[in-house]
Amino acid sequence: MQSVLQKVSAPTLLLDERKCLDNITKMIQKSRLARVGFRPHFKTHVSAAIGQQFKKLGVDSICVSSLKMAEYFSGNGWTDILLAFPVNIREISALNKLASRVKLGLLVEQRSVFQDLDRHMSAAYNCFIKVDLSYGRTGVSWHDNEKLLDLAKCLHDSSLANFAGTISHAGHSYQCRSEAEISEIHRSSLEQLASVKNLLSPIYPELTYSVGDTPTCSTMSHFSPATEIRPGNFVFYDLTQVEIGSCVEEEVAVVMACPVVALHEDRSELIIHGGKVHFAQDSVYHRRIDKQVYGMVVQSESEQWSASGKSYLKKLSQEHGTVHLADEDIGKYQVGDLILILPVHSCTCANLMGEYLTLNGKLIKRMG
Amino acid sequence: MQSVLQKVSAPTLLLDERKCLDNITKMIQKSRLARVGFRPHFKTHVSAAIGQQFKKLGVDSICVSSLKMAEYFSGNGWTDILLAFPVNIREISALNKLASRVKLGLLVEQRSVFQDLDRHMSAAYNCFIKVDLSYGRTGVSWHDNEKLLDLAKCLHDSSLANFAGTISHAGHSYQCRSEAEISEIHRSSLEQLASVKNLLSPIYPELTYSVGDTPTCSTMSHFSPATEIRPGNFVFYDLTQVEIGSCVEEEVAVVMACPVVALHEDRSELIIHGGKVHFAQDSVYHRRIDKQVYGMVVQSESEQWSASGKSYLKKLSQEHGTVHLADEDIGKYQVGDLILILPVHSCTCANLMGEYLTLNGKLIKRMG
Repeated sequence: MQSVLQKVSAPTLLLDERKCLDNITKMIQKSRLARVGFRPHFKTHVSAAIGQQFKKLGVDSICVSSLKMAEYFSGNGWTDILLAFPVNIREISALNKLASRVKLGLLVEQRSVFQDLDRHMSAAYNCFIKVDLSYGRTGVSWHDNEKLLDLAKCLHDSSLANFAGTISHAGHSYQCRSEAEISEIHRSSLEQLASVKNLLSPIYPELTYSVGDTPTCSTMSHFSPATEIRPGNFVFYDLTQVEIGSCVEEEVAVVMACPVVALHEDRSELIIHGGKVHFAQDSVYHRRIDKQVYGMVVQSESEQWSASGKSYLKKLSQEHGTVHLADEDIGKYQVGDLILILPVHSCTCANLMGEYLTLNGKLIKRMG
Repeated sequence: MQSVLQKVSAPTLLLDERKCLDNITKMIQKSRLARVGFRPHFKTHVSAAIGQQFKKLGVDSICVSSLKMAEYFSGNGWTDILLAFPVNIREISALNKLASRVKLGLLVEQRSVFQDLDRHMSAAYNCFIKVDLSYGRTGVSWHDNEKLLDLAKCLHDSSLANFAGTISHAGHSYQCRSEAEISEIHRSSLEQLASVKNLLSPIYPELTYSVGDTPTCSTMSHFSPATEIRPGNFVFYDLTQVEIGSCVEEEVAVVMACPVVALHEDRSELIIHGGKVHFAQDSVYHRRIDKQVYGMVVQSESEQWSASGKSYLKKLSQEHGTVHLADEDIGKYQVGDLILILPVHSCTCANLMGEYLTLNGKLIKRMG
């Protein structure tokens, strides 16, 4: 790791490939044990090379959250892609191109939107109903039986669309701060999904019921009546997932390396090159140190990085970051050193950084 | 404007070139009237084409906040570039290349860092002392006379470095919410700068005293004892600057156009494609509507966009945005429409978007 760090001169997102592969392997094993399909969400890494790791382990269906990602992974050999975002009919011509090349899954939640979509599609496609299991962002409410049945019939009656199932996302699991809390969201979501399945399955017996968020997929073992899971963030994890209880800090597979550019130890601070345009702006309340943080400082060791202590990323400007140094870290850093910082939200941080540097010095690109 | 919007199918940052040019022109005029040098900060637009607008109006010196930006603008014909960020000595070889091509300005605040830098530089360069006028992020404190004199002597004694002056940034002006508050920060910063100038000018008579932040540069008329201003955000402005009191909403030159992908009017919401990876995550307390907002909805008109009403961007996920619709806007939008949203922070939003679409359909690229 030291030899890689020597060459780093600007903010860089480091990837521990072993941890990443472990995270992938564990989630695949879990889905097999739970007897549910596995359709990982690729919005976190958005990298053809990291996608290959999944493929090597037998994964052949994926999920993305934008047309651009769908096109990117289609261009990199993926042929079963679910665009897990309410369909944007302004993108109809690109969706048609994509549907002619891959098994494309689209989401709808409104009859008129589906009809508009279906009128303009020219290739076969899978269509899912987005069902809201009380998260309250998008989807038909799980208890709106009338709307669910009406939309299901519309999808079923289409000649081009294959009514493939329902999609849900229990995003409120991100508010949890323990396995017990996650378990409660999981229980209630699946109960609500059971109601949807009881409604639809007598009429449409072959549907997929897809759920998936990293907190529940990481901590729970049973997903019935769901038939598919599609977590995404678990590929890297981050400090938010540690606080939620989805993982332990040792499983976080990415870390930012930032140059130290100024010391202000009189106020227990150092300034780094690494700001809003590198870390994004997610912060999380870190219980152990009782602070709202933008990242936690770790140390580089020979093969990996250490556990975090009490120093943390306290403030962000566009390019500057302000690190609060715990007493035991005062004197440890000089201007010109690198400092390693675990990110609060790996999805938004990786999106800004655009590439990964592995611990053995290989550069892994994301979608350009 | 309508014909341009018809072609937009994904989140897009629109630029009103007329407003942008007005903002540039006004700031140039102000610097001339105030008899101070003008070195605009290019970190907001980071675009060669927008840079050209400044050049046409006689601007020849600029400021940037990263080596990458310095290299980009050097590659686009700029020859007087101040890298307004504490020097990162890990980038020394690139700094040397740059200094051999352009009049490069660097910032230091610590004697040992300057000595290290100076030992490794091989081309002449301008060196500035970063002075902290009570913002508390970087720089030598304005009242630390001993450190200021010591560092000044070091810089002056170097054979390659030209001791060029001091640089300050009153970033605490961003906390202001009225011209009176900005004026008070301005007054106290300049008083502190006067103390620095009184200390240095008897020994080093030819120094530049550079200050600059959009709030004070937009609202104040006199900058003495400063001799140069370097605001950046004013080129576009944004909702934060409106709330601070730096500008009026009509002067904001950029707006996001986002596809509406779901309607939930029962809870006065609609869902757009436009999330954290498009808007960034800055929010601001909007006094008129008494809400914390991630953006304000405006309407498209024939030549420009309207003033904002009461609908606002309420919540962001990675790709989704949730818009709260004011009563008067319920029923106005359909899935498939575009909605226009003024951004809270144009610097971070533009950084994510990567390009601008002008109101007459021209695509303007940022640094790649």
